[in-house]
Amino acid sequence: MNTQLQGKVVCVALNDSQQLDAMQSTFEQAPYKAMPTQPVLYFKPHNTWNHTQAAIAYPTDDELVVGASVALVIGQQCCRVNAASAMDYVAGVALLHDFSLPENSYYRPDIKGKCLDNSATLSDAVMVSDIGQLQQHTLQTFVNDRLAQSLPLANLQRSAEQLIGSISHIMTLEPGDVIAIGFAGERTPLSQGDEVRSQLGESIKLHNNVEGATA
Amino acid sequence: MNTQLQGKVVCVALNDSQQLDAMQSTFEQAPYKAMPTQPVLYFKPHNTWNHTQAAIAYPTDDELVVGASVALVIGQQCCRVNAASAMDYVAGVALLHDFSLPENSYYRPDIKGKCLDNSATLSDAVMVSDIGQLQQHTLQTFVNDRLAQSLPLANLQRSAEQLIGSISHIMTLEPGDVIAIGFAGERTPLSQGDEVRSQLGESIKLHNNVEGATA
Repeated sequence: MNTQLQGKVVCVALNDSQQLDAMQSTFEQAPYKAMPTQPVLYFKPHNTWNHTQAAIAYPTDDELVVGASVALVIGQQCCRVNAASAMDYVAGVALLHDFSLPENSYYRPDIKGKCLDNSATLSDAVMVSDIGQLQQHTLQTFVNDRLAQSLPLANLQRSAEQLIGSISHIMTLEPGDVIAIGFAGERTPLSQGDEVRSQLGESIKLHNNVEGATA
Repeated sequence: MNTQLQGKVVCVALNDSQQLDAMQSTFEQAPYKAMPTQPVLYFKPHNTWNHTQAAIAYPTDDELVVGASVALVIGQQCCRVNAASAMDYVAGVALLHDFSLPENSYYRPDIKGKCLDNSATLSDAVMVSDIGQLQQHTLQTFVNDRLAQSLPLANLQRSAEQLIGSISHIMTLEPGDVIAIGFAGERTPLSQGDEVRSQLGESIKLHNNVEGATA
């Protein structure tokens, strides 16, 4: 199932339960004084959509990191649905790579870091019915064929169903919208010329290159 | 000049210099310990685009506030330009209304509050050459014909030119993208059935209604 980024691309931050556990003491300090009670979201806007899987430019005067997430592709308009029926509105399951600048502060919306041109890529999608229980799968990301991230989907603090439920109460979701349901807590630093490859099971794969040094 | 929201709608928060002055002691505390050094941005995604100026639904179990901003409509692709040439990439000047939930915390991206369906409206645009110096104008917003906000554009902490410069270094701007350059510091609380009207000079006007109570 071929699909393209379009409409809204909503990413869920801070959804790796191990990361949240590690950050507990930070959250207990001011200004938060509590763990997040709602999903923490960010957008990948139009200029980030890399439809051709073009090599990702390495930023000038900064670093580049990557995270991978399962991406739910919405198939049917969806507003204020509950978790029990949430997956009925999802047409397919794909992978998304989010290339960004390293994040230094959690206290301000990180628009600058998340909005690099061509920094969001999407794999082909598989029908929801073909994937079975998401939480039985592990999302793996390799950089130059070396395992960089391994995120068992059972470790997501909020499940796909819960997220579609919560997010559809915040904004109407439309066919083609994409929800990236969670990234491993630590983003992976990249160098020029790196190859990034993620996979979920045998059927969902995504591959990107970082631009090499220009001679 | 008729124009529609499309592509990216980028709003600049915390750009009223009076508001920033009033918040100085807050910014000097942890976790920031400094005034913002870069523009603070948020997006109004696709579901918020109210192309028909339909009445804005009053949220269930929450409140509704409005802010008005001058909206620059990008006319030409624009990447990493400097402030001096920034206005060459702007096709028109319009007004934008941002209807949102009241914001309770500055320490997390306020996706929930800013993403209400139909919560972004855009006026017709005037050519940049017809508006003269922006900083000589004052943006006024009336609720039920009573003046609610008055923002002299000379009070913006960062000018239109500076913002296009900064934002085009963060993401490529494309024709049709809209930059809302700044809102009066205090958003205006609304009730069901309110009329909201903003104007800049004699030629740029925007009018919206909040849905009334259903009988």
